[in-house]
Amino acid sequence: MIRAGIIGSTGYAGAEIARLLIKHKDTEVKWLVSRSFAGQNYQDVFGNLFEIIDKECADISLDEMAGGVDVIFTATPQGYLQGVLKKEILDKCRIIDMSADYRIKDVDIYEKWYGIKHNSPELIKEAVYGLTEVNRDSIRNTRLLANPGCFTTCSILTAYPLMKEHMIDRNSLVINALSGVSGAGRGAKVQNLFCEVNESAKAYGVTTHRHTPEIEEQLSYAYGESVTLQFTPHLIPMHRGILATETAKLAGSYSYDEIKAVYDRYYASEKFIRVLKKDVYPETRYVEGSNYVDVNFRIDERTGNIILMGALDNLEKGAASQAVQNFNVMFGFDEGEGIDMIPMVP
Amino acid sequence: MIRAGIIGSTGYAGAEIARLLIKHKDTEVKWLVSRSFAGQNYQDVFGNLFEIIDKECADISLDEMAGGVDVIFTATPQGYLQGVLKKEILDKCRIIDMSADYRIKDVDIYEKWYGIKHNSPELIKEAVYGLTEVNRDSIRNTRLLANPGCFTTCSILTAYPLMKEHMIDRNSLVINALSGVSGAGRGAKVQNLFCEVNESAKAYGVTTHRHTPEIEEQLSYAYGESVTLQFTPHLIPMHRGILATETAKLAGSYSYDEIKAVYDRYYASEKFIRVLKKDVYPETRYVEGSNYVDVNFRIDERTGNIILMGALDNLEKGAASQAVQNFNVMFGFDEGEGIDMIPMVP
Amino acid sequence: MIRAGIIGSTGYAGAEIARLLIKHKDTEVKWLVSRSFAGQNYQDVFGNLFEIIDKECADISLDEMAGGVDVIFTATPQGYLQGVLKKEILDKCRIIDMSADYRIKDVDIYEKWYGIKHNSPELIKEAVYGLTEVNRDSIRNTRLLANPGCFTTCSILTAYPLMKEHMIDRNSLVINALSGVSGAGRGAKVQNLFCEVNESAKAYGVTTHRHTPEIEEQLSYAYGESVTLQFTPHLIPMHRGILATETAKLAGSYSYDEIKAVYDRYYASEKFIRVLKKDVYPETRYVEGSNYVDVNFRIDERTGNIILMGALDNLEKGAASQAVQNFNVMFGFDEGEGIDMIPMVP
Amino acid sequence: MIRAGIIGSTGYAGAEIARLLIKHKDTEVKWLVSRSFAGQNYQDVFGNLFEIIDKECADISLDEMAGGVDVIFTATPQGYLQGVLKKEILDKCRIIDMSADYRIKDVDIYEKWYGIKHNSPELIKEAVYGLTEVNRDSIRNTRLLANPGCFTTCSILTAYPLMKEHMIDRNSLVINALSGVSGAGRGAKVQNLFCEVNESAKAYGVTTHRHTPEIEEQLSYAYGESVTLQFTPHLIPMHRGILATETAKLAGSYSYDEIKAVYDRYYASEKFIRVLKKDVYPETRYVEGSNYVDVNFRIDERTGNIILMGALDNLEKGAASQAVQNFNVMFGFDEGEGIDMIPMVP
Repeated sequence: MIRAGIIGSTGYAGAEIARLLIKHKDTEVKWLVSRSFAGQNYQDVFGNLFEIIDKECADISLDEMAGGVDVIFTATPQGYLQGVLKKEILDKCRIIDMSADYRIKDVDIYEKWYGIKHNSPELIKEAVYGLTEVNRDSIRNTRLLANPGCFTTCSILTAYPLMKEHMIDRNSLVINALSGVSGAGRGAKVQNLFCEVNESAKAYGVTTHRHTPEIEEQLSYAYGESVTLQFTPHLIPMHRGILATETAKLAGSYSYDEIKAVYDRYYASEKFIRVLKKDVYPETRYVEGSNYVDVNFRIDERTGNIILMGALDNLEKGAASQAVQNFNVMFGFDEGEGIDMIPMVP
Repeated sequence: MIRAGIIGSTGYAGAEIARLLIKHKDTEVKWLVSRSFAGQNYQDVFGNLFEIIDKECADISLDEMAGGVDVIFTATPQGYLQGVLKKEILDKCRIIDMSADYRIKDVDIYEKWYGIKHNSPELIKEAVYGLTEVNRDSIRNTRLLANPGCFTTCSILTAYPLMKEHMIDRNSLVINALSGVSGAGRGAKVQNLFCEVNESAKAYGVTTHRHTPEIEEQLSYAYGESVTLQFTPHLIPMHRGILATETAKLAGSYSYDEIKAVYDRYYASEKFIRVLKKDVYPETRYVEGSNYVDVNFRIDERTGNIILMGALDNLEKGAASQAVQNFNVMFGFDEGEGIDMIPMVP
Repeated sequence: MIRAGIIGSTGYAGAEIARLLIKHKDTEVKWLVSRSFAGQNYQDVFGNLFEIIDKECADISLDEMAGGVDVIFTATPQGYLQGVLKKEILDKCRIIDMSADYRIKDVDIYEKWYGIKHNSPELIKEAVYGLTEVNRDSIRNTRLLANPGCFTTCSILTAYPLMKEHMIDRNSLVINALSGVSGAGRGAKVQNLFCEVNESAKAYGVTTHRHTPEIEEQLSYAYGESVTLQFTPHLIPMHRGILATETAKLAGSYSYDEIKAVYDRYYASEKFIRVLKKDVYPETRYVEGSNYVDVNFRIDERTGNIILMGALDNLEKGAASQAVQNFNVMFGFDEGEGIDMIPMVP
Repeated sequence: MIRAGIIGSTGYAGAEIARLLIKHKDTEVKWLVSRSFAGQNYQDVFGNLFEIIDKECADISLDEMAGGVDVIFTATPQGYLQGVLKKEILDKCRIIDMSADYRIKDVDIYEKWYGIKHNSPELIKEAVYGLTEVNRDSIRNTRLLANPGCFTTCSILTAYPLMKEHMIDRNSLVINALSGVSGAGRGAKVQNLFCEVNESAKAYGVTTHRHTPEIEEQLSYAYGESVTLQFTPHLIPMHRGILATETAKLAGSYSYDEIKAVYDRYYASEKFIRVLKKDVYPETRYVEGSNYVDVNFRIDERTGNIILMGALDNLEKGAASQAVQNFNVMFGFDEGEGIDMIPMVP
């Protein structure tokens, strides 16, 4: 029986991890950590879990918890984990971190884009970037798993095969991504009120969104050379979902079949990545509530561009279910254990 | 291995039954019947099922199918099943019907409220009304299961204990219910377009909604005498969910604890009916995607009324998952097999 | 030129008053009062008003403002106005109050339902309840206008003719009302986040909602005797709109035409109250953005009940545009001046 | 008194034109043409107009109507007008066409992108493209006004100043645009049902959307040389609104102030185009229900790109209110007559 703790368990991502782990075989959620709701029963915070989870929220430190569990999921704000993590903790238990603290290998880039100092840069090296389908082997044995962001998982997986194969101009990528509102978290902010976001759409974080360097770093690894791209996120009125539309210059003249063959080579055997049929474009509703990423593309011979499209559920493959997928790899479970939900429509 | 067929498999309820049965143990979906989509692969109709269900929609008759399967789910329009069903079919396979064709024992009432003639009234008698928690024993051996409507399941279960115990005035019930749009089906109608139902609310079927006699009949059985009530449904802009608010005159002076004790006596051991804590009222989001019904009540000493509230997912406990719950009872599976989804928030 | 001030101008109701007054003839908005946004330009708070209102939010007291304006709109929390208002202020300017502070004539009832002490009970007597169509004459000369609540305006106007004419049993009314989320205000609360209210419905304030005594008091005046009723509000996922569904016992046997004649007698000459055609029920989208109230009814001969339905926009006829309607009456403008918006669909 | 007719008056754009013209001074709507609803009273089709428009829908031909009105608005499907329009009709009355039939000067491009033959190519030359702020002078005297599309109005006005001034690379433009569902029209199609589009986002018409050549043609006029661009539209769950995000290579090194000065030069005196303050990005809610277009930009020194953003209401500046704006110019009214609505929030 694997014993798990979740820090930040009353945010949307933390709660989704809890919801998934309850049904996970041979796994026990020992601690549901929440400073704001400490002492309250978890089912009183999330009414959907009434009579399902009967456990008090605790306010216990990472340090204290480390000795009594096998794995800790940290669904905490940027900067929290790198401020408190020490080698000694990793000697006691493994960590799956939902924040960006150990995602970026270059500390300067982290500090510049996040505007905070990194307090445990020595641990970055051993962290593994948890894009399961890309880094499966190194994930297996890591003690520190940096779970990717929602925009990044979607943006990277959508472009990965073509970057890796040098089929698109590495510096031509223009990524426009749409996000559901749950990506903004569960904090009490006027800007996320129903009456402020419903029936509206806007771009935000234009040129400055922190997922930019994360996407660039990973796609640079894929390409083998430095990749620079334009990433523009948008907020739209839905609960869940990321849709990434990526426009790139084709590096040569490729047919539909050639591109399709490459996507299939990379993804056909991947359960959770679905390369759609010709002319069927990803829709977020078709992945909602699941660990799937749907991808497809369309060549524009008129412009010489290719348009890549990807969709996922930001709280699942973009956060919680990918975290559990990585947990499965790390602890020797079947990779789909506990996360083989079929998307629910409507 | 139980072999199942679904007629009307490309409507919302039929598709949900398919989605649930795929993951159901020892069960094989042999036929996905759809006249409109015959010949098309099911996954091309429902993109969420891409790479999950690989089966052609068929246009096969009830008759033909009956010999080759153990159970047929009919998610068909009112009047279809009673027009084609014969004793000989029931000799070959069991039927779980989502329509109202065999829900109402009194043929006159059926014909009056539905405005159509009943062509197989002789079969009504052997039909069992599939409110699982109420009729579990008779469900076990029936060949013809009349699966309850969404408004009715919610309305009945919410009032059932107090009716049964004569704690409310049997003719005082005023039920106002709210429904998500999926209850209106998947037909191409202007009135169900996004721009027609979003950002709006309305009552409909006022005094004439067909679920009225169904609720009255079942609550009459519970009370032991005829019950007359006012049922007013409303359409509100959400996908899924029924919320029933029921106002009744209390038949005597009861305390919170007395009423609560009655609810607990009926429902505490029922996995899928959750009696909420004091002053916590049902919210449809907390049952979405699950087979749960959440109920609660509040006494108004000022008016002598009690307000009963119930919430369920109209496509699940209000249709598909209750059908599978009944299927489980009929075929000897664990009652929760394949339908123990935890509601998903947000 | 009438000079106006708005206290609480950065809430939804206050902002709507500002938006309406800008286009109102012979009226100047002199003060936009907001403690939270003091010093900020109003158009920076409400992007829709960019280049339309160029004025700084001020933090000025009621007292200070009173001498320099002709009218003050107070869109402030319950208890604010009754805590600061004095006769001397009313000698200087007239007040249109959006809160409940002077709506209820019986101080005990106010203090009991609102749980706060009333500090200026001597002023209640001169306050006029601003249901324009009912109290037009007394509104004309009042110095203190108590603008009705959104649920109350809708609930009262829907039942008013039948109560007044004693055509329904005065203690049988069961009001179920649905509200859009803007009714919950613009405060930063988790419970009003998009991801908490979207795709869900719930009852709230069951048996305790503060609009109950307000509706009862006004309908009692109409009936001529005390009216007790059951009022149950619900929150549903839309921006604007109140839909009230009211079930009552008919006091006699009335035909459709008889009831319709009564509604027409009261409302046919009222521009802003529309009695719909037979079997057409109110929908909130058809009044959105306007000062209209749509009402209709349906008799149920089977149960002896009548179902009354009303719809309005909670920020308009339920708050801001009715306030302006009253302002028009008080200052001798045409009653529809500045508020004759045609509802916008979709 | 100008007499107007509207063909296609029961679609969303046609209905919005009707709603605007009712309040337009010195203008009478003589004909509301609708084949599907002929004989029905217009207010029975659009409940918002109950007691506001009392007129039967007619099924009258363009020809017949032409002699009795001064202007005809055609809110009809692609291909309708070019199939029936003749010089003789234009001799009798002026036409404001909402379709693309006369928007594109190059008939081959029209026929290729729309897949239909153009039957009155001789009239294209005299048609004026109704982007009011760009073509005001030629609009004044035209008899045939080709009102621009929603995506196009937004896309063009957002990029126009920089294209005209050669400040961006003319072939580098990548336009990603989001549309509310009303843009898909009021036809009864499964794909536009609430349960199909709510809580989802998707790209569509990728590389093939018909607004592409329209945007390219107009921006080519602006630049003075041929412009090729990538346009990718998306459908998101809201009623109204277009948000265009346009990424382009800067043609030189420009500061914020230099770019801002150019936008101001073109737009500062335009009432309906608002260049937002630095770092304030367009949101569709802030233009909803109005004739405004909000635009802004952000330079990315890191990538050498500039990101341009524009927002408008697709049924207003993207259709109906721009049509009325052009009508005002054509008939000598004040340009803002009848369309100076202030955007409504929330």
